[in-house]
Amino acid sequence: MAVYTEVNDQALNSFLVDYDIGSVVSFKGIAEGVENTNYLLQTDKGQFILTLYEKRVDQSDLPFFLDLMQHLAMAGLKCPVPVAGRDGIDLRVLCGRPAAIITFLKGVCPVQIFPHHCTEVGRCMATMHKAGMSYGRKRKNSLSLKGWYSLYDAVQTCANDFSSGLSSDLDDELRTLKNCWPVGLPEGIIHADLFPDNVFFLNAECSGLIDFYFSCHDFLAYDIAIGVNAWCFDSGSILNIENFLCFLEGYESVRKLSENEKNSLPVLFRGAALRFLLTRLYDWGNTPDNAIVQPKNPIEYLNKLKFHQSVKTIKEYGL
Amino acid sequence: MAVYTEVNDQALNSFLVDYDIGSVVSFKGIAEGVENTNYLLQTDKGQFILTLYEKRVDQSDLPFFLDLMQHLAMAGLKCPVPVAGRDGIDLRVLCGRPAAIITFLKGVCPVQIFPHHCTEVGRCMATMHKAGMSYGRKRKNSLSLKGWYSLYDAVQTCANDFSSGLSSDLDDELRTLKNCWPVGLPEGIIHADLFPDNVFFLNAECSGLIDFYFSCHDFLAYDIAIGVNAWCFDSGSILNIENFLCFLEGYESVRKLSENEKNSLPVLFRGAALRFLLTRLYDWGNTPDNAIVQPKNPIEYLNKLKFHQSVKTIKEYGL
Repeated sequence: MAVYTEVNDQALNSFLVDYDIGSVVSFKGIAEGVENTNYLLQTDKGQFILTLYEKRVDQSDLPFFLDLMQHLAMAGLKCPVPVAGRDGIDLRVLCGRPAAIITFLKGVCPVQIFPHHCTEVGRCMATMHKAGMSYGRKRKNSLSLKGWYSLYDAVQTCANDFSSGLSSDLDDELRTLKNCWPVGLPEGIIHADLFPDNVFFLNAECSGLIDFYFSCHDFLAYDIAIGVNAWCFDSGSILNIENFLCFLEGYESVRKLSENEKNSLPVLFRGAALRFLLTRLYDWGNTPDNAIVQPKNPIEYLNKLKFHQSVKTIKEYGL
Repeated sequence: MAVYTEVNDQALNSFLVDYDIGSVVSFKGIAEGVENTNYLLQTDKGQFILTLYEKRVDQSDLPFFLDLMQHLAMAGLKCPVPVAGRDGIDLRVLCGRPAAIITFLKGVCPVQIFPHHCTEVGRCMATMHKAGMSYGRKRKNSLSLKGWYSLYDAVQTCANDFSSGLSSDLDDELRTLKNCWPVGLPEGIIHADLFPDNVFFLNAECSGLIDFYFSCHDFLAYDIAIGVNAWCFDSGSILNIENFLCFLEGYESVRKLSENEKNSLPVLFRGAALRFLLTRLYDWGNTPDNAIVQPKNPIEYLNKLKFHQSVKTIKEYGL
């Protein structure tokens, strides 16, 4: 939520020489996205987002993300698409950073989540999963089971600083998940970060998804687990069953889940909760006090993990 | 340059019930202005800026500023204007802050300043001064000679921390300015903060002025001094005479300066440099390290003050 790289009018105008998108009418740094710098660029031909990719994004992944957005939009998902310059290239360098111009997506992200939001986001996620089937590229999920081990190693001390004994609880959870992590579920391109700030709504309808910079190849149902954790919990870290069932209903209106996928949800929920708990612990322990963006409190995902650990059978989820 | 107050979609929609400006299409926090929180609000009827006034702005001054914008625009200045709700009221409360919706002004602020920018900004400043003549309200300039004394008292220690011996230099300068500060110059409404980030350009032409939240009643030529200090110095803190003469030429194309005003410019330049040196020293000494917005380095205005102190006659300014 910050402008890390200042782009001045001259740098912008030089950059735009390679594009055929009109002349600048307005240019404002916007508080959108945590990892990158984003500007809202308005020209006499339309509105665009100019993104400068900051250090945390691996540059070699950028073509995967940009081509994916193009592919998903062609296959029917509402999402922004990269705008190529006259030479057909959509990824350039601006102020020493990789940079791309993306189309502007209308909509506002919801803050208080109602069941109809969950139906919509479930439906859009399934649309994305279907659209991703025909995408030719792959990108490993570095933040799945294997990646959690290295993250766990990095957060052991700060986990105990955060909550006494947490490190050994995390170790137990990792062992449990390793033993019961599903195999053979349908795989494909997942968004992997479909939180409310990455889903836009116009009135009651989802107007599109944004921020595909965690997208990767993994179990489709794991994306559902991430989404349910993000969309279907009440403030007290209790699952809102109505929201959850709406999410699934929306999802299944586009793509039916197999019995195997449904039965795997409880363990996927725990994995998805652990994944965000680990990265939030990492950020909590590794962000300087004077950072522009303050890290999110890990407590929310610790509580969600505890909730899922306490559930004994799938019936408690209303399934 | 920060979003201090988060406004969510629900709070926004409740707020907009009082307005007749269409339904929300997009809503983004923007990095504009240092003192307040600004959102770019797009509806199906147009684009607007939603401003939440943060603590540093005196709430009782807000009607002066908002009415001034309305008045100046009616009198021919290009600037944003407040948008009233159905009840005719343009100042309300949102998320516990005074808040107003302002029209959107197209344009981009220049970073590298060329002579034609200075001609344009001089012309627009004079247009504002003329337009302000018929404004019925007054607001004292709290950051003129008298205000500098209290600021000086507050920065004595940090002035010496910043540069050894600076505090006594500032004391000398205050005495000098007190003794030779002009009297009887034409007065009126001045912008008092017309820096490049408050002036928008479209192509080579000034598309308007923004951020009237320092506007007040003072010598019109004092505003010129602030503007020249902000627009007409090269990076080495040397006055760029071409830019300065362009600024004056642009100004005088709308409003002629009297001989008295011209002869007063050297002392007004020193005063205007001291004013920003004092506030930057204050911010430098009173901003916590972890603040979202880092204070501007006082050195720039210390150097500008030294430049003006070194000038002996008005001829050295090219006049």
